Amino acid sequence: MPEQNGLKPLMAAAEVNALLKEVYPQLNEHYDFYQVTDVFAGGCTVRLNADERHLRPGGTVSGPSLFTLADIGGYVCVLSHAGPDALSVTTNLNINFMRKAQAGPIDGHCRILKLGKSLMVFDIDIVAGPNQQTVAHATGTYSIPPKR
Amino acid sequence: MPEQNGLKPLMAAAEVNALLKEVYPQLNEHYDFYQVTDVFAGGCTVRLNADERHLRPGGTVSGPSLFTLADIGGYVCVLSHAGPDALSVTTNLNINFMRKAQAGPIDGHCRILKLGKSLMVFDIDIVAGPNQQTVAHATGTYSIPPKR
Amino acid sequence: MPEQNGLKPLMAAAEVNALLKEVYPQLNEHYDFYQVTDVFAGGCTVRLNADERHLRPGGTVSGPSLFTLADIGGYVCVLSHAGPDALSVTTNLNINFMRKAQAGPIDGHCRILKLGKSLMVFDIDIVAGPNQQTVAHATGTYSIPPKR
Amino acid sequence: MPEQNGLKPLMAAAEVNALLKEVYPQLNEHYDFYQVTDVFAGGCTVRLNADERHLRPGGTVSGPSLFTLADIGGYVCVLSHAGPDALSVTTNLNINFMRKAQAGPIDGHCRILKLGKSLMVFDIDIVAGPNQQTVAHATGTYSIPPKR
Repeated sequence: MPEQNGLKPLMAAAEVNALLKEVYPQLNEHYDFYQVTDVFAGGCTVRLNADERHLRPGGTVSGPSLFTLADIGGYVCVLSHAGPDALSVTTNLNINFMRKAQAGPIDGHCRILKLGKSLMVFDIDIVAGPNQQTVAHATGTYSIPPKR
Repeated sequence: MPEQNGLKPLMAAAEVNALLKEVYPQLNEHYDFYQVTDVFAGGCTVRLNADERHLRPGGTVSGPSLFTLADIGGYVCVLSHAGPDALSVTTNLNINFMRKAQAGPIDGHCRILKLGKSLMVFDIDIVAGPNQQTVAHATGTYSIPPKR
Repeated sequence: MPEQNGLKPLMAAAEVNALLKEVYPQLNEHYDFYQVTDVFAGGCTVRLNADERHLRPGGTVSGPSLFTLADIGGYVCVLSHAGPDALSVTTNLNINFMRKAQAGPIDGHCRILKLGKSLMVFDIDIVAGPNQQTVAHATGTYSIPPKR
Repeated sequence: MPEQNGLKPLMAAAEVNALLKEVYPQLNEHYDFYQVTDVFAGGCTVRLNADERHLRPGGTVSGPSLFTLADIGGYVCVLSHAGPDALSVTTNLNINFMRKAQAGPIDGHCRILKLGKSLMVFDIDIVAGPNQQTVAHATGTYSIPPKR
């Protein structure tokens, strides 16, 4: 069930990965930790390849690492569906951490709940492990600058 | 895709409606505004039959009315899946309002993201209108008191 | 410490109470449950006079009643500081419930964290009881429609 | 006005900095970006020394960098007030971004809204720039493991 009808991606995953590399080099300074794996109508999938650098006390993936994945998921939704204007910014993000995630691939399944002229609302299910259980869930809002 | 495996409801929708009437009479003082329409493994569906009493300036359903639907959705998830202890309480609820809803039936589709011993995390898609578009989305946490 | 310099209220508490009565009669249908008690530069104070109608299972003030107080607090901030346009709407509200509140007066101390052209962000400390302890805390965003 | 009476820190800022270095080396791998600058009864102050590594498109400090500061602020509140058990974890964090922050020192003023046996709720005002304006505000919950 689409949350908003008529959404159509303007860019594919590879194009968004290339754009991120160009405009946001700090994201993956030494390695492709954060990647776009899919862009589809009304959403996208992003991945964190977590290693020991992403761990916190207790040996599980840290909150900031999962927050970054959620934030990137929303950013990819904006870039791919509203156009490649790098200046959209997060205004709000709420995240719940539900289970511990080990190092390894962690996938975020994003959907656009609303794409308006100046705001986009999205949510993301973050899953990991052999059973692909939900380890975190986030909801956020991006502010979209007016077209120049 | 279930967010948590092995969840099984302990009560059906009619039983939860009867329980709500008994323990929480303030919810529907003069009319059955808020109802449970379905309980299934890992979630539930709740409905607000909105009339003019639920409207705010602009003639649309008010934020507090939709918040109440979200909160009830979580409460029904706890009651139906963790057992009919009325003393579970909300500790956090985050809600995004995305579109205006007119008076009429408004459905909340809830899923349990995590059911632990002392906390339950859930989210809810609130849809309305002829196209069943998402008008609001919420995520929340209930604290479950220890068994006596 | 003011969160934003140069904020100045355009309306006093009594004026906002009169405006609420006119544009939002559903809020206080039979009694003055929700009131504005103060408007000052950069914020306001709102009060819920809670009675048994606001209670939930366990005999404490319900989540929706406190959410309504938080939402009204933000609405009063917008009306008093951005002008009496009734059509501003909540886009996001996050609330944490921390302690149980008994029936009686419950005060919400609101401050404007940002007043922009199209969005206002606020937070509110909700206190109650003889020790005026914090029973809930919320943060929210209002969307302000363009001036006609 | 204290949000909870009787709170007393068990560790000073220098002790918490030393503990963080030991249990969470990933936080400041190559440089002391994140520091505790003060611990006081009922709260703490944390600082991010932001440089170009923390910037996002547009040249402003990224959301994940500010989220990390908020998360650390809550962690320091738990460690300093509930005791140095490194295994407390964030269960929820909600953050609003209000203004852009430039590279430079960014301070987070944290207060404990509730310290219970198993949960701690806190909020944080994040301020930056010559006018120390609020650039972000967050509210969060930490789960505290039972004492061994």
